[in-house]
Amino acid sequence: MDTIFYNGTIRTLDKAFPEVSAIAVKDGVVIAVGSDEEMLAMATENTKKVDLKGKFALPGFADSHMHLLIYGTYTQRIDMTNAKTYAEIKEWCKADAPKAREEGRWILGSCFNQDYWTDTNKMPDRHDLDEIADDVPIFLERACGHICLLNTKGLQVCGLWDEKEETTKETLDFGPDGRPNGYIRENTRLVPKGIIENFSIEEKKNMIATACQNALKQGIVQVHTDDFNVIGDNDVEENLQVFRELDEEVRLPIRICQQSRFLTAAGLQEFIDRGYKAGSMYTKHFKFGPIKIMADGSLGARSAAMRQDYANAPGERGLLLIPDDEIRAIYEIAHKNGFDVVNHCIGDAALEQALDAIENAIKKYPRADWRHGIVHCQIMDEALQDRFAKMNVLAYVQPVFVKADSLVVDDAVGSELAKQSYNWRRYIDLGVHMSGGSDCPVEPFDILPNIYYAVTRMGFSGKPWYPENAVTLDEAVRMFTVEPAYASYDEATRGTLGVGKYCDMVVLDKNIYEEPIEELLNTSVLMTIVDGEIAYAK
Amino acid sequence: MDTIFYNGTIRTLDKAFPEVSAIAVKDGVVIAVGSDEEMLAMATENTKKVDLKGKFALPGFADSHMHLLIYGTYTQRIDMTNAKTYAEIKEWCKADAPKAREEGRWILGSCFNQDYWTDTNKMPDRHDLDEIADDVPIFLERACGHICLLNTKGLQVCGLWDEKEETTKETLDFGPDGRPNGYIRENTRLVPKGIIENFSIEEKKNMIATACQNALKQGIVQVHTDDFNVIGDNDVEENLQVFRELDEEVRLPIRICQQSRFLTAAGLQEFIDRGYKAGSMYTKHFKFGPIKIMADGSLGARSAAMRQDYANAPGERGLLLIPDDEIRAIYEIAHKNGFDVVNHCIGDAALEQALDAIENAIKKYPRADWRHGIVHCQIMDEALQDRFAKMNVLAYVQPVFVKADSLVVDDAVGSELAKQSYNWRRYIDLGVHMSGGSDCPVEPFDILPNIYYAVTRMGFSGKPWYPENAVTLDEAVRMFTVEPAYASYDEATRGTLGVGKYCDMVVLDKNIYEEPIEELLNTSVLMTIVDGEIAYAK
Repeated sequence: MDTIFYNGTIRTLDKAFPEVSAIAVKDGVVIAVGSDEEMLAMATENTKKVDLKGKFALPGFADSHMHLLIYGTYTQRIDMTNAKTYAEIKEWCKADAPKAREEGRWILGSCFNQDYWTDTNKMPDRHDLDEIADDVPIFLERACGHICLLNTKGLQVCGLWDEKEETTKETLDFGPDGRPNGYIRENTRLVPKGIIENFSIEEKKNMIATACQNALKQGIVQVHTDDFNVIGDNDVEENLQVFRELDEEVRLPIRICQQSRFLTAAGLQEFIDRGYKAGSMYTKHFKFGPIKIMADGSLGARSAAMRQDYANAPGERGLLLIPDDEIRAIYEIAHKNGFDVVNHCIGDAALEQALDAIENAIKKYPRADWRHGIVHCQIMDEALQDRFAKMNVLAYVQPVFVKADSLVVDDAVGSELAKQSYNWRRYIDLGVHMSGGSDCPVEPFDILPNIYYAVTRMGFSGKPWYPENAVTLDEAVRMFTVEPAYASYDEATRGTLGVGKYCDMVVLDKNIYEEPIEELLNTSVLMTIVDGEIAYAK
Repeated sequence: MDTIFYNGTIRTLDKAFPEVSAIAVKDGVVIAVGSDEEMLAMATENTKKVDLKGKFALPGFADSHMHLLIYGTYTQRIDMTNAKTYAEIKEWCKADAPKAREEGRWILGSCFNQDYWTDTNKMPDRHDLDEIADDVPIFLERACGHICLLNTKGLQVCGLWDEKEETTKETLDFGPDGRPNGYIRENTRLVPKGIIENFSIEEKKNMIATACQNALKQGIVQVHTDDFNVIGDNDVEENLQVFRELDEEVRLPIRICQQSRFLTAAGLQEFIDRGYKAGSMYTKHFKFGPIKIMADGSLGARSAAMRQDYANAPGERGLLLIPDDEIRAIYEIAHKNGFDVVNHCIGDAALEQALDAIENAIKKYPRADWRHGIVHCQIMDEALQDRFAKMNVLAYVQPVFVKADSLVVDDAVGSELAKQSYNWRRYIDLGVHMSGGSDCPVEPFDILPNIYYAVTRMGFSGKPWYPENAVTLDEAVRMFTVEPAYASYDEATRGTLGVGKYCDMVVLDKNIYEEPIEELLNTSVLMTIVDGEIAYAK
């Protein structure tokens, strides 16, 4: 035996012997589970014995939707997640200005959310940002990732200053003077990002390696991540080189299920023509997962595509980012080539477009065991949920989103629809395979808080938001273990800790099944084990 | 859409929409499930619409362990399943004698069980059979398949007459005169069988084709069947030709998961060296399943290998058919080459030998997602069950066996062990993957009676036998649908009727979930659907 983990409270999530104290591993595979005595009896002189010191362990956590590379880029920026006021944002940017001016670079900020500020909830425009600096370009990205703010210098540097409302209205906002007001949305975001995020392979490798190390600290053993064509165009081969070299250099300690993003059917076809196969392993830890597309935007930016007007903005219904015929083509190409599609859908119009496209593809090119999924699955009435469940489409949800969304959803769609939406309880009761993710860096990829929000539905104000839509603790734990394994077709080899599974495990300082639920927010990861090896220890 | 089945009560066994009235199929795959109205709206002019006339449907049945080819050979013999007396047996054989004499062939009988006779329960010996005919060879095989009876002429024709007790005692019984008494067991059975069962490829094809048609009548869409090296030596290539030609000729309407039988490690190694791959499809309907071996015999023949003496035969513990080192080698070769092993184990000594061999193999050649299984899993105390469950070994059980075994098990092993054994309730509660099979032709491959016995544990005498060890109706149904699909690694594509699964379905004349349990014995199969096509209709 290579390693025996003993003296723990190991919750296997396996029906056979759900709780054991010890586990024996060889070549990364669980060979036996049982009592300390039974397992230690299997030790030879070369066996590594790891004393879990009575601590609680679970199958390693997985994040079913996040953005590893974008997270990496965010480590280069001012993190505005915890800003409580706009005044703070202003101060941080001002402090960075001299250095930015000296280095000839932008002032960059991430993860602001004006809804959380206590001094103002107004989205700053270019005039506000010009007060920070008018000679250095400024770029601030909202937490949702769907809207960015630029100052006048920034607009000029990236060539957007002379855009006209007639041609770019949908993704660029204009002031009364006919000039861009500094708000840029969706695809137009790629213009400044293309300039700012021009990283070398080595820079990318370092960012991903750091991201993986940070993920391990949260007990994460697998991420479903969306890294192609997000911080640059046509970067698939370059990013594959990044992951390949990292894995060869033993710097890719967690499993990657790549949600390969493509913006067009032609781009996807070209990728498939290069011979990449759905579900195949590219390197030891890198697997080609589904194709990732984005059907709409966000509620906060009011770019989520709705079937009815926004309750707080009559006449507005958001935006379908991909035309019907294009999205249909993407699903057809993916499906007939054995790929699934995971599709970012916040609004019900986007969801309906996705289900129509799935239905078309599966009818046209029938194949068994497809696992198309919808990322976010937010605004959805019960009838649409029924259709969703009946089609066996997978849900990829982000429990921590309730914190922020509790502030905006009722206003945006009205309470009648809001209370039906994000109804994870009902999704599970309908038999939907529902995995959990963080959408990091939209939210931090801390899994335990995500579990907390799945169970409590705690809103920003400290009041639970439609708590009747919550799931149980065990269901929430499975959303971050068993279900992501299912979503990556790994259910037979991962997600639980039974005999014959890979030994991916997380050790916590508390038994979360026995503590009050609030303790999830005070629970620490002590150890993260991948392939039976300790990849992180506190 | 190719076909729409509507106006039914379709129990999908899928968590999402467990009951629907209609199902739409294309290219054999379920494209949509729902109401008649919803599904019929998908019809085009070329769509076949099948009115299920309000009848009840389930995913098609599967038999997780049977012997298709042996069943075929049995169709050539006198079927003694329903004999109530030895006098009847004698009469049937005598009636066949003139024709056998004329055709220069044997008198052949199958499936007798002396425990069921009302005139005598003595196993007839060669003297008894000589009274039927002494100039024509006679060969009668017991229902268990582990013991056969020959008359003197039969012993002479197949060269066993001069065998000596000193060398062949274990599988050949002798009378006080020092001559074989006509009882032959286990491997020695192969001697007369090699002479009797010398079929041409065409004969085998016809037997298998008939067997498949009979299986369809029972609602069976998949069989896990054990056909290599059972009615001849080294017949793998020949039998593959049989299946290949049948499938090419569209005469293999059900799915075959071949449990490839090998008698030695060398035979298995040679098979693997020829390039056959675990889990691979050989033809459209033929899949290479696990390796099948037989660790022991039967309780009836007292050849099941026990850890303690038979309660009714002090000093006897049955027989391990494969030595420890040989069985260890078989498991190692199979496991390291990606094959699972399913091992016939009736007695607890056989079971323990099997678990030891599995443990050795998985330690030596760790791999994830193995599914080694034990066929029968009969005599097993709770401690052994715990070990079994903890190791995630699969159970392949035969519910209908309780009928006959209720007569013999308490006597054979004592009630203390008998009541712990066959404890399907506990297997399921321990999280064991347990599929159901008939072991046909040991018992008929009728699935509904098997479900009945799983739920009622009805004994031969009409009294339930340890009914506390029974499973629920829904669990029993899953043993013949969901679980065999798991055992053949098909759980993602078969076993339920959700969207994205192959449409294998059975239509019954009663809703078995709403009728008294006894009605299972009066329920008929109206239609069997494989790949969305009606393969059988009453």
